[in-house]
Amino acid sequence: MGTGVRRRMGVEERRQQLIKVALDLFSRRSPDEVSIDEIASAAGISRPLVYHYFPGKMSLYEAALTRAAEDLAGRFEEPHEGPLGARLLRVMGRFFDFVDEHGPGFSALMRGGPAVGSSATNALVDSVRQASYEQILSHLGITEAPARLELVVRSWISLVESTALIWLEGRRVPREELERQLVHDFAALAAISAAYDPEMAAVVRTFVQNEPGDGPFAELATRLISLAS
Amino acid sequence: MGTGVRRRMGVEERRQQLIKVALDLFSRRSPDEVSIDEIASAAGISRPLVYHYFPGKMSLYEAALTRAAEDLAGRFEEPHEGPLGARLLRVMGRFFDFVDEHGPGFSALMRGGPAVGSSATNALVDSVRQASYEQILSHLGITEAPARLELVVRSWISLVESTALIWLEGRRVPREELERQLVHDFAALAAISAAYDPEMAAVVRTFVQNEPGDGPFAELATRLISLAS
Repeated sequence: MGTGVRRRMGVEERRQQLIKVALDLFSRRSPDEVSIDEIASAAGISRPLVYHYFPGKMSLYEAALTRAAEDLAGRFEEPHEGPLGARLLRVMGRFFDFVDEHGPGFSALMRGGPAVGSSATNALVDSVRQASYEQILSHLGITEAPARLELVVRSWISLVESTALIWLEGRRVPREELERQLVHDFAALAAISAAYDPEMAAVVRTFVQNEPGDGPFAELATRLISLAS
Repeated sequence: MGTGVRRRMGVEERRQQLIKVALDLFSRRSPDEVSIDEIASAAGISRPLVYHYFPGKMSLYEAALTRAAEDLAGRFEEPHEGPLGARLLRVMGRFFDFVDEHGPGFSALMRGGPAVGSSATNALVDSVRQASYEQILSHLGITEAPARLELVVRSWISLVESTALIWLEGRRVPREELERQLVHDFAALAAISAAYDPEMAAVVRTFVQNEPGDGPFAELATRLISLAS
């Protein structure tokens, strides 16, 4: 902009701009590799001015991560309409959009490298897990989850995370296939648990009843039968 | 032992004793909560003498963890005989034995608290994951895994980890049920991936052919069919 006069931003506006710039940088490379100098330069301000708004890289990283966590938790929100399989599939689509946008930063955070992990970042990751867990329970119409259902939903969330992390390593399987597969996996984990427990069987029956004949659960059963024969 | 003369241990013997004592303490409580004083006292030696063998708590923790990692990796070793489902079930039994023995330490490590995570500990955890991954591939008779098979096996290993971590929180589901369930889960994840890919279908068909009619895969299919009807 040459010698043009730069518009002065207000404090909160500047903070929000820095968070946005930092999140973008922290998403595209491992956070260890991003310097305050780089953030300052990308925001078009001096390094001391960055420190005026954030005491250090860690506090800026945590602010960026908080924004990303809110964004991610929001992607698990889905209207309570239509078959559960189709809802989960839309959620998986938005989840993989997020993973796609924030790939290197997501990997670095979830793999918990030494410069990345802290109690604050761990708490943020757990808050997103908890929010997605509660979302899924609400779609199942359940408020107090029995132990087996809690285990199925939480272990499935971890399966979703690890599948995304492995996918990011080389993107060797189309993400649409994985999104669909993870919905099938949810049905399978629930059904397997239901095979041992009447309470889980009731949960599974309720959601299966509302699934169309061409939904993920029916499709899974058909494909398994054709594989076995 | 009163004033009796304590036998002097050799350097390597003493190191091994300290590792054993430390692993026991680090297993029963979160490593953050275990002090060098406590380790010294449990080993029956002075605090300075501990530092003679290990420069600090982190190095003793890493040595203890290395031993635990070797132990755990060994539990994934299983003779290449009999149906795959039964082999996996024995492996799951030994894995849950390990988790049971090292509960609090296992949780602290895998949840990656700030005092626990380091590049060295992360590398150890990854080495166990890699060893168990290679074990499973060898049981499938495969050396170069196609992308989908790699994804199924590695994401299943992460499912096993998260299931164990959730189980440890309150042990509200019998572990024998979870061991069996995880074997079913493996078959289900493989079969679901096989539904999308001829290469995976060939892998699944090979192992299904060698399964008895009452093995985990057949049982899973039967249970799913009865649930759906």
